[in-house]
Amino acid sequence: MTDTAVPVHPTAPTDAEVRLLDAHWRAANYLSAGQIYLLDNPLLREPLQPGHIKPRLLGHWGTTPGLNFCYTHLNRVIRTRDQNMIYIMGPGHGGPAAVANAWLEGTYSEVYPEVSWDETGMARLFRQFSFPGGVPSHVAPETPGSIHEGGELGYALVHAFGAAFDNPDLVVACIVGDGEAETGPLAAAWHSNKFLDPVRDGAVLPILHLNGYKIANPTVPARIPERELLALFEGYGYRPYVVAGDDPAVMHRKMAETLDRVMDEITAIQRNAREGGNKGRPRWPMIILRTPKGWTGPKEVDGVPVEGTWRSHQVPLPGVRENPEHLALLERWLRSYRPWELFDGTGRPVPQVLAQTPRGERRMSANPHANGGLLLRPLRLPDFRDYAVPVDRPATTFAEPTRVLGALLRDVIAANPDNFRIMGPDETASNRLNAVFEVTDRTWQAERLPTDDHLAPSGRVMEVLSEHLCQGWLEGYLLTGRHGLFNCYEAFIHIVDSMFNQHAKWLKVTRALPWRRPIASLNYLLSSHVWRQDHNGFTHQDPGFLDVVMNKKPEIIRVYLPPDANTLLAVTDGCLRSRDCINVIVAGKQPVLNLLPMDDAVVHCARGIGIWEWAGTDAGAEPDVVLACAGDVPTLETLAAADLLRRHLPQLRVRVVNVVDLMRLQPPTEHPHGLTDPEFDALFTTDKPIIFAFHGYPYLIHRLTYRRHGHGNLHVRGYKEEGTTTTPFDMVMMNDLDRFHLVMDVIDRVPGLGVRAGHVRQLMADERIRHRAYTREHGEDPADITEWVWPH
Amino acid sequence: MTDTAVPVHPTAPTDAEVRLLDAHWRAANYLSAGQIYLLDNPLLREPLQPGHIKPRLLGHWGTTPGLNFCYTHLNRVIRTRDQNMIYIMGPGHGGPAAVANAWLEGTYSEVYPEVSWDETGMARLFRQFSFPGGVPSHVAPETPGSIHEGGELGYALVHAFGAAFDNPDLVVACIVGDGEAETGPLAAAWHSNKFLDPVRDGAVLPILHLNGYKIANPTVPARIPERELLALFEGYGYRPYVVAGDDPAVMHRKMAETLDRVMDEITAIQRNAREGGNKGRPRWPMIILRTPKGWTGPKEVDGVPVEGTWRSHQVPLPGVRENPEHLALLERWLRSYRPWELFDGTGRPVPQVLAQTPRGERRMSANPHANGGLLLRPLRLPDFRDYAVPVDRPATTFAEPTRVLGALLRDVIAANPDNFRIMGPDETASNRLNAVFEVTDRTWQAERLPTDDHLAPSGRVMEVLSEHLCQGWLEGYLLTGRHGLFNCYEAFIHIVDSMFNQHAKWLKVTRALPWRRPIASLNYLLSSHVWRQDHNGFTHQDPGFLDVVMNKKPEIIRVYLPPDANTLLAVTDGCLRSRDCINVIVAGKQPVLNLLPMDDAVVHCARGIGIWEWAGTDAGAEPDVVLACAGDVPTLETLAAADLLRRHLPQLRVRVVNVVDLMRLQPPTEHPHGLTDPEFDALFTTDKPIIFAFHGYPYLIHRLTYRRHGHGNLHVRGYKEEGTTTTPFDMVMMNDLDRFHLVMDVIDRVPGLGVRAGHVRQLMADERIRHRAYTREHGEDPADITEWVWPH
Repeated sequence: MTDTAVPVHPTAPTDAEVRLLDAHWRAANYLSAGQIYLLDNPLLREPLQPGHIKPRLLGHWGTTPGLNFCYTHLNRVIRTRDQNMIYIMGPGHGGPAAVANAWLEGTYSEVYPEVSWDETGMARLFRQFSFPGGVPSHVAPETPGSIHEGGELGYALVHAFGAAFDNPDLVVACIVGDGEAETGPLAAAWHSNKFLDPVRDGAVLPILHLNGYKIANPTVPARIPERELLALFEGYGYRPYVVAGDDPAVMHRKMAETLDRVMDEITAIQRNAREGGNKGRPRWPMIILRTPKGWTGPKEVDGVPVEGTWRSHQVPLPGVRENPEHLALLERWLRSYRPWELFDGTGRPVPQVLAQTPRGERRMSANPHANGGLLLRPLRLPDFRDYAVPVDRPATTFAEPTRVLGALLRDVIAANPDNFRIMGPDETASNRLNAVFEVTDRTWQAERLPTDDHLAPSGRVMEVLSEHLCQGWLEGYLLTGRHGLFNCYEAFIHIVDSMFNQHAKWLKVTRALPWRRPIASLNYLLSSHVWRQDHNGFTHQDPGFLDVVMNKKPEIIRVYLPPDANTLLAVTDGCLRSRDCINVIVAGKQPVLNLLPMDDAVVHCARGIGIWEWAGTDAGAEPDVVLACAGDVPTLETLAAADLLRRHLPQLRVRVVNVVDLMRLQPPTEHPHGLTDPEFDALFTTDKPIIFAFHGYPYLIHRLTYRRHGHGNLHVRGYKEEGTTTTPFDMVMMNDLDRFHLVMDVIDRVPGLGVRAGHVRQLMADERIRHRAYTREHGEDPADITEWVWPH
Repeated sequence: MTDTAVPVHPTAPTDAEVRLLDAHWRAANYLSAGQIYLLDNPLLREPLQPGHIKPRLLGHWGTTPGLNFCYTHLNRVIRTRDQNMIYIMGPGHGGPAAVANAWLEGTYSEVYPEVSWDETGMARLFRQFSFPGGVPSHVAPETPGSIHEGGELGYALVHAFGAAFDNPDLVVACIVGDGEAETGPLAAAWHSNKFLDPVRDGAVLPILHLNGYKIANPTVPARIPERELLALFEGYGYRPYVVAGDDPAVMHRKMAETLDRVMDEITAIQRNAREGGNKGRPRWPMIILRTPKGWTGPKEVDGVPVEGTWRSHQVPLPGVRENPEHLALLERWLRSYRPWELFDGTGRPVPQVLAQTPRGERRMSANPHANGGLLLRPLRLPDFRDYAVPVDRPATTFAEPTRVLGALLRDVIAANPDNFRIMGPDETASNRLNAVFEVTDRTWQAERLPTDDHLAPSGRVMEVLSEHLCQGWLEGYLLTGRHGLFNCYEAFIHIVDSMFNQHAKWLKVTRALPWRRPIASLNYLLSSHVWRQDHNGFTHQDPGFLDVVMNKKPEIIRVYLPPDANTLLAVTDGCLRSRDCINVIVAGKQPVLNLLPMDDAVVHCARGIGIWEWAGTDAGAEPDVVLACAGDVPTLETLAAADLLRRHLPQLRVRVVNVVDLMRLQPPTEHPHGLTDPEFDALFTTDKPIIFAFHGYPYLIHRLTYRRHGHGNLHVRGYKEEGTTTTPFDMVMMNDLDRFHLVMDVIDRVPGLGVRAGHVRQLMADERIRHRAYTREHGEDPADITEWVWPH
């Protein structure tokens, strides 16, 4: 399986072909180095002067020639096979490679006409790279052909698989840098081959690029014996091919031949599965490409080796402006690509350079899969109202919200069999979305046993015990123009905080790029949330993802806390229709009271916030106190508190406000959903105490409302990081969010309530002691808690 | 290498030994099932009644018998070899196993005397499990012998390696569940063998426990051919041994023999390396243990198979209280362990059960390595003042703070050669801590080349491109009583948000357990921060980790923003001395102005916040405006703004307040470092505008100060999620944090400044335009920015 074992392939490139491949590669390398260094004199028409050099040298040369090498050879594959292919560059620092190739094949100038396909454009291309007002140094959203920036490493391969799902004709070539290969998410992503259906999905062609070094260190995969390396990838279920060397002429042949062989294998695997039926997991090919870091760059600088070492990671010649020797080395290096052979008098690539580049949408820089909005079809959505639970009187019957939602999702899956998936770390049933299994299975391409439950290669539910894979697959799927939902235990969504951050950053940038068409939003359903992880304990109790979410650009972010089944249906429908956002829905799977009939739920969710007259005692008048709530458990406790107040302090005018759309709390200057100050004041008053029962950490509510008039009167209860394995009601008591404590909070904050209120306060304190004692004796919550309904 | 290939080992257990092993295993299983089910009747002295059963059945049976099986057999290894060993249970849900074994060997009753080593104690043991007021369901801090809760999956193996570093006599047995094996961090952690020194470190014995299922799904490693599985672990560099089956009698023999063989190998590897010198990376053994999920539990319930399927994941008989058939099945199941053979009349384990359990500190539940504070030696710390940069006049010379810190860390390493390590994802040199390489190397046990830089098996600097591994190694190292520091790019520390959360939760719980002795704090040095990732672009710009940190329990959390080299030295010294905390230091690596002479720096850091009279114009009087700042770049911009104000509006009395310890801003009721309100008011006034230039997202400052008197006057500038590849000064301008904008903010907020202020404001706006234009033309910041110093 090493390169030496590979006999010559029948379509091995001719000498002429090798010359063309090399010309293209040289052109891409020249354009890449030019971006890092040149402010002017793009074609080296005159001897290089310090004034031609950028004052600040930025960019990563080390990985770039390898990226260009692969790009050149994949172009040949596309041309010779008319292959539909996109290119994911894990080493996203190699931004110059992506930009160089997009410009070479003309896409760049089509997208950005000011960077024209000639010498003037080339000069602009060079100057703008990593330059203020120009383009970023990475394979960013600004780069045509990219769905993967790769600034944060770890997600190249999982994005590639996400892009390949339900794209049977697509091959996703994915360069995995050997630095990135050390990360956890990447190490797990190799197992994605157990989830790829050779019939309905496309293929991923991983190319592990061993250039040996990360920033200052060798990499693990480059420093283990080849025997171990091959065993590792055979163990991951691949058929590895090694292409190793540093002589371009030899390497062009090896790479072309290996790619021909590998593409034959992919074609055969797919044909066998599609014609002969899926007969188990194929052994997909992958390539291990071993080339020197900074290949073709300066071999030695200041007496120390550079090419092939970590010293070529970024800018191999750092002192070009000041150091004539470096300047001379740079000029020799740039001229080594013989630009005069590659570009014509106008600066445009000569035909030989373009001989093997694809045309039109076959260009990887112009492939519509890399601009998924172009391909996006809206979901066929059933009417969510049809799934409503009947509610004759608010808060008197129970339902499991996620179970109700499951029926809607089942029908979404059925109506959209090729562009909607649900991801989750083995929690779809645990989160009670079971109904989906009436129409589909869990994606599974490994071995099966008779005792297994709903497994199939074509399943639409993807479960793997890795939040990284769930998130990454979904991102890749969305970025290529499809739809989906990620359901997850609330606490463990923190595992992908950083992936969320990066996706939000990507969306923020794309919104300013008109040529990037809107894609479906990334929808999170966080169930098994903090208040109902009483059985799993403290490690499973963390509502802090919302705080991470709130730091991203407001136009990207939505947070919904539907308190019952019908509001969950209404909110989810909106999320599935939205574009270019990240929607976070927090909803419970345990039975909760059904609060609103569907018509009311629709109105309430459309408003995002509202007064519940039925639960309050203010009767349209100015209240004495506002009880606000967001989240299912806090809403339950607030209603129970309102009931206690009504019974014990009937003169007190209590207003109950429920918040579904958390963003409504912010000023409209901060978020497009924000209430105006008069709207906010009309709900919350400007001078009455507000007791806010919140699902998450209480500070978040203060953060959202600190500019509001009534903020000084706001008292928030939420999760204060207290918990263990106990009962649900003990959880709210441990965090002072329980109904009794809310009543005490009201009594402590409404002035002039008199002696009777003092007695009521003592009664509530006694109730807390009594309930805790009951729980500790019986091991469960008392019936007056678990069976409490609104007393009509 | 499969079990069939293994000949009988000379120390294979006798039949009598097997009977003893089985007795111990049955006892542990009985005690585990008892915890899940029994409220009373612990020894089944009377027929089982519904009243003996807990009302809420919680716990995870599925993984438990396998954990007990390993524990039993590891006990034999410890006894026969007098081996120093701790046990990490990746499947932390199997809490009953850890508790059962700790009680069996007497540790539990030593730690918790009320849970005595007799029938009364057994009844308490059963009742308290997952019971309100009792103990958690997982292998939590409350569990003796645990350093790994395992509630969030992924970190078992990395913790195991962290524990093994610098503990040459210790073997860390680590059970990796096959569910956990799907996670990214675990997949990467196998490569930790490239960082383990057989001479100076101990050994890790991974036992991959394939019970086949996670919650509702099969697992990937259990459903690939054995040939792939073996290749995978050979590829990871291990020598895998398979122990598979379901007949206890056979399995006891296989496991005992395999463990003997594996322990012989570990001993031989260590002896060879220690006597013959480290001759390269050994092939450490590991075990693949394949047993049925819920082994020895009910085989079939309600007509469907349970043992060996996902149905035994949690409680295999759910309806015991209501369903007489389930009750009968439970009784049969419990009696199948023959408790009357295992416990004497007082309920204490009979001698046969304890025949193979270790004694004293050799008990895994009582090993001091699992209570690292017992072993903690304070660091030998040089006087940090000796590393100070001289500062004759504030803010007139430059230094790179992390480079200065590097010298201190170098000497910490030299003085503590066996209990201090630095972790980082290949960024120690990039973060300019290079001085450490004068005394040590990077830990590296893979192949080396002549061009490599400072690699050695015994290096004290651990670099791998995985924040998960860095964090996990360090956690394991600290939890076993050592010290360390994790240096990381600020944006990418979000990758370990969830690991941070879990460690903070662990510390919070241990603080309430007097028998857990304090351990060294987890110290983060976040360099390459948001304001100086101008060259890497938007993906590298994220200061939001601080927001995650702030959600944890205040007594655990410290956040420091030293603005220069001397303050960084002072702060780091304090962090290295602290215990049971998580300290976050944000400090730049780029040249910044030296602000304070060391004596002043010490005082300033001790106070954590203070007025800088030399920078202000309030001269001890009440100011017109307060310029507050936290973080190196915001401090620089604030000083420059103060200078502009002094020159352009000399009558304005400006006070400059710098914050090093962010926690000082909170009320003392919220954080032990919090300023009292009078202290806060004395610094910030109650009625003057405060322009706060902050390192991170501005909301954080509002969140910390919203209850303060002056909060209504507080205006915060910080990172508002704007950025790209550009210059450093353009970064601050994009986020309105620049000196000119701060002056404009002052003018907008101080009333009655008159016409002249309007002109100054226009001048500042013009400066912004001029600077941006300069940057876009020249590609770098103008000299009046980069060379600005305080004008004395």
